[in-house]
Amino acid sequence: MKNRGRFLVVEGIDGCGKSTQAARLAARLGAVLTFEMGATPLGAAVRQLVLEPTSHPSDMAEALLIAADRAQHMAEIVVPALSAGRHVVSDRHAASTIAYQGWGRGLALEDLVVLVELATAGRRPDLTILLDLPVASARARLAGRADRMESNEEAFFERVRAGYLAQAAAAPDEWAIIDATRPLDEVSALVQEVLDARGWS
Amino acid sequence: MKNRGRFLVVEGIDGCGKSTQAARLAARLGAVLTFEMGATPLGAAVRQLVLEPTSHPSDMAEALLIAADRAQHMAEIVVPALSAGRHVVSDRHAASTIAYQGWGRGLALEDLVVLVELATAGRRPDLTILLDLPVASARARLAGRADRMESNEEAFFERVRAGYLAQAAAAPDEWAIIDATRPLDEVSALVQEVLDARGWS
Repeated sequence: MKNRGRFLVVEGIDGCGKSTQAARLAARLGAVLTFEMGATPLGAAVRQLVLEPTSHPSDMAEALLIAADRAQHMAEIVVPALSAGRHVVSDRHAASTIAYQGWGRGLALEDLVVLVELATAGRRPDLTILLDLPVASARARLAGRADRMESNEEAFFERVRAGYLAQAAAAPDEWAIIDATRPLDEVSALVQEVLDARGWS
Repeated sequence: MKNRGRFLVVEGIDGCGKSTQAARLAARLGAVLTFEMGATPLGAAVRQLVLEPTSHPSDMAEALLIAADRAQHMAEIVVPALSAGRHVVSDRHAASTIAYQGWGRGLALEDLVVLVELATAGRRPDLTILLDLPVASARARLAGRADRMESNEEAFFERVRAGYLAQAAAAPDEWAIIDATRPLDEVSALVQEVLDARGWS
């Protein structure tokens, strides 16, 4: 018997298989499946602004827009579901901001931590699952897909990957790192093992 | 001979005459005339999201969107103009966030101060001119205009006005309060007196 929902996040660089694993995890748990950016109507409009090549947001404007999407996502989807006792699985959340806007684009990490706290009112995920993948493997998987963020350089994604690993290392109780080079079904089994180990099955 | 541009802001509740006075002031100074929200292409799209009745942003999402507009405004218009030695006159800026989102909507002032610092990289106006007006007078002037923010209650605008007056009282060297109940030309003359007193004519 659960008395409250758990907030689980799946993270990693583009091409790591987040969306597939988040969907499988949500299905197994009967959880609300959601994502950042763009899960709310407001967020979808914000996402379009961030990804549109003609918008040219400054790095800080981009970080603030992403935070606005997150605040709306928390208010409209995540917090109501958790409060109703549902589990929530989100494809990306706050860790993406630290990894992409901080480690990737070079915004000050302490500024981004503050932004995340404002956007989430301090509600942290119970668990963030990092699907870790070498950048070369991710780029091979991504061949053919393209938007503004995904057209950046390999060095950018190396920094992002390092940013994820650093966050996971700094808070091992709140993170699990999974080898995303393995086949999909093996990755799913590894995710399940992480939940089993916490008695969350 | 000036060696750098000055950043001047005109503030006040809706209907106080900000736009007119900002335009006159910019013309007299040969300054760049600009405004928040919406002076950049990105900002115009953000402004539409904030004011659209169907967007339903949470209070924090709204504050973050406004901060994104401000960050882009600083990066694209204000800072480049100041760096080129131009004066800049902005119709609204950071003080609007403290007054409207803080005093008006009730978001924590310390959170908004942090947001303003992030959006502006700490660049404060050299002078903020408050066109102060009783709410009843402002509402009378506004009859016929309507958007989401302007359809709020009188008590909201009373709080906003108090928020402006509190900011001006807390930093008298950076603010001037002008009685906006006077006729337009008198208000313009009072604005000029403020600049004269600072040797900025």
